[in-house]
Amino acid sequence: MNYVLYYSPGAASMAVHWMLIELGVPFEARLIDIDTGAQKTDDYRRLNPAGRVPTLVVDGVPHGESAALLMLLAERHPDAALAPAPGTPQRAEWLETMVYLANTFLPAMRDWFYADTDGDPADAHAVRALARRRIEGALDRLDSRLADGRRYLVGDALGTADFLAVVLMRWTRNMPRPATTWPHLSLYINRMRRRPSFIELNVREGLVDWQSAP
Amino acid sequence: MNYVLYYSPGAASMAVHWMLIELGVPFEARLIDIDTGAQKTDDYRRLNPAGRVPTLVVDGVPHGESAALLMLLAERHPDAALAPAPGTPQRAEWLETMVYLANTFLPAMRDWFYADTDGDPADAHAVRALARRRIEGALDRLDSRLADGRRYLVGDALGTADFLAVVLMRWTRNMPRPATTWPHLSLYINRMRRRPSFIELNVREGLVDWQSAP
Repeated sequence: MNYVLYYSPGAASMAVHWMLIELGVPFEARLIDIDTGAQKTDDYRRLNPAGRVPTLVVDGVPHGESAALLMLLAERHPDAALAPAPGTPQRAEWLETMVYLANTFLPAMRDWFYADTDGDPADAHAVRALARRRIEGALDRLDSRLADGRRYLVGDALGTADFLAVVLMRWTRNMPRPATTWPHLSLYINRMRRRPSFIELNVREGLVDWQSAP
Repeated sequence: MNYVLYYSPGAASMAVHWMLIELGVPFEARLIDIDTGAQKTDDYRRLNPAGRVPTLVVDGVPHGESAALLMLLAERHPDAALAPAPGTPQRAEWLETMVYLANTFLPAMRDWFYADTDGDPADAHAVRALARRRIEGALDRLDSRLADGRRYLVGDALGTADFLAVVLMRWTRNMPRPATTWPHLSLYINRMRRRPSFIELNVREGLVDWQSAP
């Protein structure tokens, strides 16, 4: 097994980094600090033309898109059962949830953070207003889903949707309404933050905020 | 095999409708005309709480998200080979492409069409300006990918990425720069529009524009 993860602390790469730690497979993590613009170098763009993290090099070939990498890793490590197996009743719900997080929650977060660099800074306020509405709508929907007491987003087991959702929820921590202010999300987030793999992930990425209360 | 597709002509459901026709499997298509607000009825929202098309009922259970449904159908019908099989070298590229279309191209199109209903109408101009920039960026990227003469987006065979990409490209037909004005996309689109399954799809959905020249 040959994995090299290019990551920046707290970025979307965090979900893939988390899954690699949870899987317990050998991998090498290489820091691409987006705060210093390291993702814009020619060397990195040869791996990831869009200049984004993560890149995961799998058997020598670089690939991007965090949701896709989570799905790929689940498929390559079926014994870890971090996704419902093909043919099981929960498979469709898993695919639907992964795509929902990737095409609704994640792009709205991108708008929230990058409205003034992706677009005209004069328009950023308007873009952020719609982004906030969509992010809070996504949190409403995810909170409702957890209202029946389920412990994980899909099925009854930890999986790829949890890694992606929790990292996206972490990004809301300085927004007007952080994810932790929704009642069921708050319980869910605190449970997920207490996982040894999440604590280890924060140590490895050098992150100290958004930890669970001791 | 038991599929019921809820669709609206020309909507994201078109990609799933196309795939079902290409697969040649039995299915029932039920019209939910979004121009008349049929997606907002209580009956439909019981199937699809977000009030969107498509919904695909699979073995009695309704599911949404077009990209997820395409991936699910590919997995349920492996003999049709509309996605690279698990474990093949092209599998990662396929997952990455499906997620890219779902999290970059598709949300920008949603912004383009729904900026004034999803958000504050006063902000719609700003949201559309960023959406246009992102849509044209996605078309640049897809055009570059086809520049080496490949006939399909992933690997050397028709697949789910083509169904989704062509439907998204169709949505640009009345934009300032339609997808058909990019050189490699133009060739690709014309080839895809000549497929018997695409012609049949347009007949079934009652669509007459954006056909290939005879």
